[in-house]
Amino acid sequence: MFKKRENVAAIEEGKLLSPKFDKDGLIPVVTTDCKTGEVLMHSYMNAEALKKTIESKEAYYWSRSRKSVWHKGEVSGFIQKVIEIRIDDDQDSIWMSVDIGNGASCHVGYKSCFYRSMPLGKVENFEKVEMEFKEKKKRFDPNIVYKNKTNPTKI
Amino acid sequence: MFKKRENVAAIEEGKLLSPKFDKDGLIPVVTTDCKTGEVLMHSYMNAEALKKTIESKEAYYWSRSRKSVWHKGEVSGFIQKVIEIRIDDDQDSIWMSVDIGNGASCHVGYKSCFYRSMPLGKVENFEKVEMEFKEKKKRFDPNIVYKNKTNPTKI
Repeated sequence: MFKKRENVAAIEEGKLLSPKFDKDGLIPVVTTDCKTGEVLMHSYMNAEALKKTIESKEAYYWSRSRKSVWHKGEVSGFIQKVIEIRIDDDQDSIWMSVDIGNGASCHVGYKSCFYRSMPLGKVENFEKVEMEFKEKKKRFDPNIVYKNKTNPTKI
Repeated sequence: MFKKRENVAAIEEGKLLSPKFDKDGLIPVVTTDCKTGEVLMHSYMNAEALKKTIESKEAYYWSRSRKSVWHKGEVSGFIQKVIEIRIDDDQDSIWMSVDIGNGASCHVGYKSCFYRSMPLGKVENFEKVEMEFKEKKKRFDPNIVYKNKTNPTKI
């Protein structure tokens, strides 16, 4: 489907796309905001999601909770327009830069899934590390947008 | 070691750090340049690497090829000074913003591991997708810096 991975030099220094999918058929994807550089999400694609994303220029992912390809925004309306897709040295992870307009990317309601920051420095007790909320206000109410949908977060 | 994961509300909306490590004991980490927002690396930490990173404010990772905790820069000298660490909604991935000065993050010699960009739009043949090099020049010669070290890239 994609170029077969045959040697390290071609994978690292070549021009042909030869992504490595893990034993579950997935590749991790980092999605950033094209305007601010913020990391919006960390997620996964299978080969089909990657192909659909490249061809449609809209983000498709693999949902590990629903076990299916997922067109980002199909429920919330928060489509991600793809501006650029890069792959790393050994072609086993993807960086995608997207335009979300004034939308949001996090199912909890925030713009970015990464809305909490940890304190740095010596820690007395790792069971009590208190983080700071970097986003103060949700962009949407998930109880309205995702009404009757199962929360993908698992303990 | 960290706060036990007990309920979804606390994981998503709480302040306490309760990272989820996968069945191999790892959590994926996205590392970005604090000055430009570029994604530099996608890698993994185990609990020990995360603790060392928080306390020392220098990046430690888990090397899946060497199966050990790895102080980034211990061979190359390209230490990453940690500016901020965030965690995502379900606390199963990390975003770390770092200062690398004029250094580099990629074992192939580039500043970012994500030095190649794919073309977007209709694809005739997915076996022949030709990427563009976005970094034109390596920042160091890996044959000198990593002399006698095994290349971590696997087919």
